[in-house]
Amino acid sequence: MNKNTKVNAAILIIGNEILSGRTQDTNTSTIALWLNSLGVKVQEVRVIPDIENIIISNVNELRKRNNYVFTTGGIGPTHDDITAGSISKAFGIKYEIHKEGFKILEAYYKKGEFNEGRQRMVWMPENAKLILNPTSGAPGFNVENVFCLPGVPSILKSMLGGLKNQIVGGKPIISHTINLRTVESEISKSLTFVQDKNKDVEIGSYPFFQAGKLGVSIVIRSDDQSKIDVCSAQVLEFINKKKIEVVNKN
Amino acid sequence: MNKNTKVNAAILIIGNEILSGRTQDTNTSTIALWLNSLGVKVQEVRVIPDIENIIISNVNELRKRNNYVFTTGGIGPTHDDITAGSISKAFGIKYEIHKEGFKILEAYYKKGEFNEGRQRMVWMPENAKLILNPTSGAPGFNVENVFCLPGVPSILKSMLGGLKNQIVGGKPIISHTINLRTVESEISKSLTFVQDKNKDVEIGSYPFFQAGKLGVSIVIRSDDQSKIDVCSAQVLEFINKKKIEVVNKN
Repeated sequence: MNKNTKVNAAILIIGNEILSGRTQDTNTSTIALWLNSLGVKVQEVRVIPDIENIIISNVNELRKRNNYVFTTGGIGPTHDDITAGSISKAFGIKYEIHKEGFKILEAYYKKGEFNEGRQRMVWMPENAKLILNPTSGAPGFNVENVFCLPGVPSILKSMLGGLKNQIVGGKPIISHTINLRTVESEISKSLTFVQDKNKDVEIGSYPFFQAGKLGVSIVIRSDDQSKIDVCSAQVLEFINKKKIEVVNKN
Repeated sequence: MNKNTKVNAAILIIGNEILSGRTQDTNTSTIALWLNSLGVKVQEVRVIPDIENIIISNVNELRKRNNYVFTTGGIGPTHDDITAGSISKAFGIKYEIHKEGFKILEAYYKKGEFNEGRQRMVWMPENAKLILNPTSGAPGFNVENVFCLPGVPSILKSMLGGLKNQIVGGKPIISHTINLRTVESEISKSLTFVQDKNKDVEIGSYPFFQAGKLGVSIVIRSDDQSKIDVCSAQVLEFINKKKIEVVNKN
């Protein structure tokens, strides 16, 4: 992929436990930050239940309009782990025991411990490419532009490193943050003016409460450092004029 | 709505800061847990960027197939706060200053402080119903089955109490958790058997790591306590047979 091309991704969080509110998703942020560093921008995230036809329709919709799709969850050994079977159906590929995956887990477990439950974890779409798991053995897998990762955050994190070379991104997205001691309404007009002058830069404004004090983070994002610099200078110009305190920049 | 009816909701998280990974969403869990207690089940969550046509198409898609839609984010005073204008377009309703909202903020701020930036926060779809904000003044709003809340978690939380009477749910969804000192693969076959015998109960299995030890949470969810009891007894039966330690139940 050309380094000037915009490269997009979707994240599909599969799991009733997120929808019920029982579990707080943290994988979105982990994957998004990692993708940013590779020059890939996450443009949509969906959380869906462990229901086969819903997984299939979402995977098929998202993989068509995104360069990459990352799913999390549903690749363990229990009855509610139906991601691999659903992905097979989404692609119309045979669902079978993955020979290489089988060997990995056979070697990972003690003799006699690689039981039927654990074998469930190596049923995958035919010819899926494995995503190695340095934490707990059971691999994820990749079919075309869809990458299936586990839901447990620590395991997921440990698997991203090995995936890096399979993701071809555009120019890395750079982010510059200016933290101000002010409230949004004091700067909204001037900030709109800066955004209008810098249409291809993404400027976000986010209130924060820190140590009992109100503040606003201005976040400037682009794949072009010089555009960020121009935009940042324009922000600081009106901030100085208004005598607003800059808490820090990063 | 009849108390036997299933009542569903979608959550639409609007904000580039979640997609970039900069901010970790916590509102999904807050809203989902609150809705569960009112007998409303969240069946899908989407995170989308601050782009008008994407907000419009998602709102229109979600509001048709869900009893309720809750949006978070994009109702502040800055240029990237475009939720209210987008909702107006989604419904084909005039976008204008909300008289009641204007009065609230006029009274909230000191004389002369209710500036143009702040007035932006009371531009809403015509005849929108206000959602009062006990924390920071600026109200959310409601059009038909769509409820628009702010993105700042503490403010959002403080607004839910006032909304309670506007949500008509089904039977509250009850959840029972059994925490076990085991690994998923030890119980997967037996658990599948229990799920097959209790098709209308939702059984989830989630590995956890606590104080250096592995465990599995079995989560049983239904709107019928007696069904949960039956299912729970069947789980405990095979757990006892396998001599697996029950850490706790809740």
